[in-house]
Amino acid sequence: MSSISVAIVDPQTPGNVGTIARGMKNFGLSELLLVNPPELDPDGEAYGFAGHAREDVLPNAREVTFDHLVENYHTVGTTAVTNEDARKHVRYPFVTPAELADTLRDVDTDTCLVFGREDVGLTNEEMAQLDQVCSIPASADYPVMNLGQAATVVMYELRELTVESTQHPDGIDRADEAEIEGLYDQFDALLGSINHPEEKRAKTGRLFRRLVGRAHPTDREARTLRGVFRRASEFASPPDDR
Amino acid sequence: MSSISVAIVDPQTPGNVGTIARGMKNFGLSELLLVNPPELDPDGEAYGFAGHAREDVLPNAREVTFDHLVENYHTVGTTAVTNEDARKHVRYPFVTPAELADTLRDVDTDTCLVFGREDVGLTNEEMAQLDQVCSIPASADYPVMNLGQAATVVMYELRELTVESTQHPDGIDRADEAEIEGLYDQFDALLGSINHPEEKRAKTGRLFRRLVGRAHPTDREARTLRGVFRRASEFASPPDDR
Repeated sequence: MSSISVAIVDPQTPGNVGTIARGMKNFGLSELLLVNPPELDPDGEAYGFAGHAREDVLPNAREVTFDHLVENYHTVGTTAVTNEDARKHVRYPFVTPAELADTLRDVDTDTCLVFGREDVGLTNEEMAQLDQVCSIPASADYPVMNLGQAATVVMYELRELTVESTQHPDGIDRADEAEIEGLYDQFDALLGSINHPEEKRAKTGRLFRRLVGRAHPTDREARTLRGVFRRASEFASPPDDR
Repeated sequence: MSSISVAIVDPQTPGNVGTIARGMKNFGLSELLLVNPPELDPDGEAYGFAGHAREDVLPNAREVTFDHLVENYHTVGTTAVTNEDARKHVRYPFVTPAELADTLRDVDTDTCLVFGREDVGLTNEEMAQLDQVCSIPASADYPVMNLGQAATVVMYELRELTVESTQHPDGIDRADEAEIEGLYDQFDALLGSINHPEEKRAKTGRLFRRLVGRAHPTDREARTLRGVFRRASEFASPPDDR
């Protein structure tokens, strides 16, 4: 059974530990490992920033050594600063978070995502001991992300491997084609009822078909609009036709 | 010329404004619009959390009204809480951030990503006035993300539309196939030098080919390993062969 854990090395502010714990719970992760953490006061920022993760991820966090990570996990070191130079292997070759998800998808491994200090990240000596390097593509002008934000992006990309079910329904409930065709027919009927110039009707009908076609309407949207057009047609018909 | 701006409605803590400003700069965005913001003290948390965005994104932020957003932008409201029920349209249908990137890729529009309050997000009344709904897929157990982290995930997914160049080199410099074949040959030669059982050599060679084949070695990796094996073969040869 594969697992993905998160380790933070030498975090300097309790708030960031809490923020990362929250992100972990958002994306279905639970094991938080801390190397040389600050004190996490139950009344302090770590718990204050953790949201519902204050109930499980944060109180279950374990303090471990860096060597413990190296010895027990397939470790992935994260960094904004990669080598351009293929002759140095401390931070190269690296994968992006999306590529990391691809490489882990079919592998049976206990993986640990390792995040470093707020200011200097992971040292070269630490990176050299980790198995894989992961780097988030960001603006060349300023690629260095806040620790909590960077961790969240990596966990977000790995969500397929860790989130059993999301809060979203299983896809948008697109209307049946017949319902949508009925909407087009009703629109054409409306064009007739309002005496839209005969020679323009087909073209206007196509315009409406293209607009709706791009939007993939739900059943509710298609039926509601169809009802509106039907009623508009009735109102538009001359009184003696009613 | 399309653009993507960010608005925060009624942010309660200056720190979150700073965090979002930093994320904007990380992903190549620059226009920050604030509806009813707290005071952003240059010596306070907003500037403290903004990283290099304290130099441009944050001081250039503009205070605007909610109506200004509705009137001037294609607005995208963000929320963790969507409707399951297709009969209600305040938060449904929605797109995920990846789908949002797809829908905006080829459209010429001034888009504004609208984020709400730390605790309650955007109200139904506000959402109803926005053009599109975006929701990050997260754990059904706890989908509600921290404001700064949610904003960062959305901007990360839109990076292709906003980041001109990333800090990464243009892809990993994979070795030429000839170099990699040379490595396999050298490995086979090593098997000979160490008297690896004749009947197992082909199988062990294939094993090595499969391992290296999965890793797509760089030129440097292939050449260095080849050199190591060549030298090992020389050492392994019996003294009277040297």
